[in-house]
Amino acid sequence: MKPSSSSSSLRVRLFHIVFESDSRPARAFDIAVISAIVLSVLTIMLDTVASLHERYGVLFFWLEWGFTLLFTFEYLLRIYCLDRPKNYVFSFWGLIDLAALLPSWLSLVLPGGQALLVIRFLRILRIFRVLRLTRFVNEGQLLQGALLRSRHKILLFLFTVLSLVSIFGSIIFLVEPASAGFTSIPRSIYWAVVTLTTVGYGDISPVTPLGQVISSLVMVLGYSILAVPTGVFSAEVMRSIHFERYSDEVCPGCGHEKHEADARFCKLCGTWLDENAPDPRSGGDAAKVPGSNVSAG
Amino acid sequence: MKPSSSSSSLRVRLFHIVFESDSRPARAFDIAVISAIVLSVLTIMLDTVASLHERYGVLFFWLEWGFTLLFTFEYLLRIYCLDRPKNYVFSFWGLIDLAALLPSWLSLVLPGGQALLVIRFLRILRIFRVLRLTRFVNEGQLLQGALLRSRHKILLFLFTVLSLVSIFGSIIFLVEPASAGFTSIPRSIYWAVVTLTTVGYGDISPVTPLGQVISSLVMVLGYSILAVPTGVFSAEVMRSIHFERYSDEVCPGCGHEKHEADARFCKLCGTWLDENAPDPRSGGDAAKVPGSNVSAG
Amino acid sequence: MKPSSSSSSLRVRLFHIVFESDSRPARAFDIAVISAIVLSVLTIMLDTVASLHERYGVLFFWLEWGFTLLFTFEYLLRIYCLDRPKNYVFSFWGLIDLAALLPSWLSLVLPGGQALLVIRFLRILRIFRVLRLTRFVNEGQLLQGALLRSRHKILLFLFTVLSLVSIFGSIIFLVEPASAGFTSIPRSIYWAVVTLTTVGYGDISPVTPLGQVISSLVMVLGYSILAVPTGVFSAEVMRSIHFERYSDEVCPGCGHEKHEADARFCKLCGTWLDENAPDPRSGGDAAKVPGSNVSAG
Amino acid sequence: MKPSSSSSSLRVRLFHIVFESDSRPARAFDIAVISAIVLSVLTIMLDTVASLHERYGVLFFWLEWGFTLLFTFEYLLRIYCLDRPKNYVFSFWGLIDLAALLPSWLSLVLPGGQALLVIRFLRILRIFRVLRLTRFVNEGQLLQGALLRSRHKILLFLFTVLSLVSIFGSIIFLVEPASAGFTSIPRSIYWAVVTLTTVGYGDISPVTPLGQVISSLVMVLGYSILAVPTGVFSAEVMRSIHFERYSDEVCPGCGHEKHEADARFCKLCGTWLDENAPDPRSGGDAAKVPGSNVSAG
Repeated sequence: MKPSSSSSSLRVRLFHIVFESDSRPARAFDIAVISAIVLSVLTIMLDTVASLHERYGVLFFWLEWGFTLLFTFEYLLRIYCLDRPKNYVFSFWGLIDLAALLPSWLSLVLPGGQALLVIRFLRILRIFRVLRLTRFVNEGQLLQGALLRSRHKILLFLFTVLSLVSIFGSIIFLVEPASAGFTSIPRSIYWAVVTLTTVGYGDISPVTPLGQVISSLVMVLGYSILAVPTGVFSAEVMRSIHFERYSDEVCPGCGHEKHEADARFCKLCGTWLDENAPDPRSGGDAAKVPGSNVSAG
Repeated sequence: MKPSSSSSSLRVRLFHIVFESDSRPARAFDIAVISAIVLSVLTIMLDTVASLHERYGVLFFWLEWGFTLLFTFEYLLRIYCLDRPKNYVFSFWGLIDLAALLPSWLSLVLPGGQALLVIRFLRILRIFRVLRLTRFVNEGQLLQGALLRSRHKILLFLFTVLSLVSIFGSIIFLVEPASAGFTSIPRSIYWAVVTLTTVGYGDISPVTPLGQVISSLVMVLGYSILAVPTGVFSAEVMRSIHFERYSDEVCPGCGHEKHEADARFCKLCGTWLDENAPDPRSGGDAAKVPGSNVSAG
Repeated sequence: MKPSSSSSSLRVRLFHIVFESDSRPARAFDIAVISAIVLSVLTIMLDTVASLHERYGVLFFWLEWGFTLLFTFEYLLRIYCLDRPKNYVFSFWGLIDLAALLPSWLSLVLPGGQALLVIRFLRILRIFRVLRLTRFVNEGQLLQGALLRSRHKILLFLFTVLSLVSIFGSIIFLVEPASAGFTSIPRSIYWAVVTLTTVGYGDISPVTPLGQVISSLVMVLGYSILAVPTGVFSAEVMRSIHFERYSDEVCPGCGHEKHEADARFCKLCGTWLDENAPDPRSGGDAAKVPGSNVSAG
Repeated sequence: MKPSSSSSSLRVRLFHIVFESDSRPARAFDIAVISAIVLSVLTIMLDTVASLHERYGVLFFWLEWGFTLLFTFEYLLRIYCLDRPKNYVFSFWGLIDLAALLPSWLSLVLPGGQALLVIRFLRILRIFRVLRLTRFVNEGQLLQGALLRSRHKILLFLFTVLSLVSIFGSIIFLVEPASAGFTSIPRSIYWAVVTLTTVGYGDISPVTPLGQVISSLVMVLGYSILAVPTGVFSAEVMRSIHFERYSDEVCPGCGHEKHEADARFCKLCGTWLDENAPDPRSGGDAAKVPGSNVSAG
């Protein structure tokens, strides 16, 4: 998406500010955009509160238009400073950005466009822009790596949860009367999810003794199997952190493998680890393995 | 369960498709059966929703029969392509498969067979077939291994939970009035389970100050001891993952497997593990390791 | 508590059966007593259910007396086969055992003895006898060790939880009206416990927007800090399991310290680890280990 | 904050008692103050219970004044025994201590001072003084270190939770009718927090099938992602405990601390770490820093 070298220096400068975040103005732009997103999302949210809508409805309306103009300007700016804007326009973020603008503009043209305003809520997705802030990138990658590596185990866990709520939902449907809220299997499965995840709304709860025994079973099960994703993920995070810390250098002297990242000498036999540089101790004959001088002596 | 070599090649081919999953048609068959199971289970479930039953009751009825015919065909196919079908018929999956078919057929013959239809819900158990998909087998084994090794600790934990809910259920029964829902000890134990597992329906909740103090104790206890199964399981998963990283080198001396990844000598018989490099002890040139005085003796 | 050698052989035999669990009859006795305890506790519990009491009240009454006689006999048996029964009588379990018997007998003599029957619930404490079953002793010790070592951290955590619920309970009391259930600070603290531990009965819940914001904060806090005891305990369990697995033998050859418990040779330099026995490789006769041909060469 | 050497010996002694906790009288003072804080906080709390206020209102009033006088005396004592009391007065604890006293005194002078009494609740913050008890300091530091090191990951997690509740709150607002309690997006977000954190009051719960499907998704999500902070924190605590086991040997060659427990040579300069044994590389003259004798040889 980088502008070609033939583009004007203004466009290049704009590109660096708008699309990257490794300079001061770029970070300032990022923070300004994110603040505007958060504020516009807050405006939309608060406008749904009846009492606030009555009092500040007009203010919200103009704020809304202000943000729409601002984001329209930002959108055009992004298109302007790219050589091949198509890639951006049809990218995930590009479509989200457009979807955040369209409803407001369409409501001007179309009579039923008002209905489209619900799409404005999609704008909330732009909040994920925050993730581009460099501070979080590394941490996110570590967590993402751990999640990726444990994805099969987590899928297996989710599948087990799905099976359990299906089975227990069906069982409780047979046991409990419809008057207690267990009117159908899907609804009973909803109850099973509420119970297994230990949420426990209490909007549907068992009334028969047998139903309460089965519920207790589901609760203890849900309470205990929480250990599974946590255990899997803990192990993966630990592995990630562990890998961060150890180099994969093998000691040429004794073959020991797990040296800390900043180690220069093998902790077990004292051998110089960096084969490309001379051992500072050895003067020059590069007797890489001190352990051998023993037999020499 | 493998068909004998004397069986027709069609039966052999069918066997590989129906019972195994290591070829393309076998995987296609697996996926088709699993899809049919999921759809038939969904049909049964949605049929219990009053509004859907009214509108699509007839459709559901025919779908149900379609699936019954399909599964009957699959059942007969499985029996056909086995030499000793008895083993399958009386296996766990064989009985489940039969139990999923019988109710529909019996309801044709017997007048009260309709009542047997609840057994259809057993069909939901077939959903576990998904576990046969090879992708999950390894992950499942790792988790299963961790669960197996921690089963005594988890049992001990479950026993402690059982004791705690019995004791706290009895105590709260003495403290709280029956009008608040604590009408008997079993019901109070149900409340204790709801509270200790942090589900918290709120269908029964303490009203006296002392009862609320005891409840708070149960809550904090339940909140804290969740750490026990999680900690135990985390440790076991980590150990499993650790074993994964064990080298699969077999000692040429004594045949011991499972050496740690950084081992150079068999921990049981001291044999040099790396067959491609000379043993540093036996030669004379590169006496890399202090332990080499053995050769000096 | 062991009987002196002068006691009759019957008493010695009884002692081994009643107080220990390392022989077959002793284990049978243990299981019989534990079964009786569980049954008697179940009787007491089920007797509190109004409908069951009506129908089986008389049966429960006689069962109750049967168990009382049984436990009285067991109690006397324990006293009989000890030389210094005082130690047992005034031990924790001795007092529990007595407390489980007294109420029934006192209700015969005293007119108001009926009131003492609530002490019968103490009998439930005897359920912990199950813990004496040898299978659980080791597992229990590992968990106990981990709990002991993390007790200061867990206390610190519980203190933090106590402070948080006090502070947030006071804040919500100022924010929410009494009509929503927040009638006093202690009651508001009860609400804070219900919320922080993610139990969430819903018997008291915030109604003002500010109260709901504060509640959300408490919930997210409670949801997140659960990681603290779990993390601490996971780490301790892992350490326990780790220690189980590694010997503390140091390799006399290269000084490597973490050898697996069953290692006989250093995995890094191949040195014989057991200093008190001769290296099977260095001698000539007992060529127990194939690796020893090294010395032959 | 230490008093200068010119101060009277009484002030010095008082300083050690009031501000430190390494002698017996100092610990006694600490415990007395903490007890008084806990009691005064309990008094304030119990006074808000209507029934207790009616009966013991007068007692609470005088207790309150007793504690106010006590804390005023302690406050003046702290100021007296410091050379530069300003630092204390404007420190966090100094302001809390003052804020705990002022309301009571102001209520004497000002007519509306009664309203200030709510600030008394701030006194509860003094409860954190307990943390100064030395036993907890080390444990606290370990946990604090683990929290500090995982703060970015935890922030990222909290941000994800915030985004999820915003998005799911907006979606459920569109799906569910206002009559079910979803009257505005902020309120729907409150519901999402209640659900995602598995608290589940049940004061607002979905009634439409689609709403229940979305809720189930939120619940399973909340149930599963709890693994993230727990995994991160577990890993960090384990690392902290691991560091504990680092030897505290300082390298005689380069002064590097924190060598792994099984290290025999400094990982940075290759120096032999064990001063009591000869360096296996150096022949025998125990020239402790091999880096030098190599060139000598």
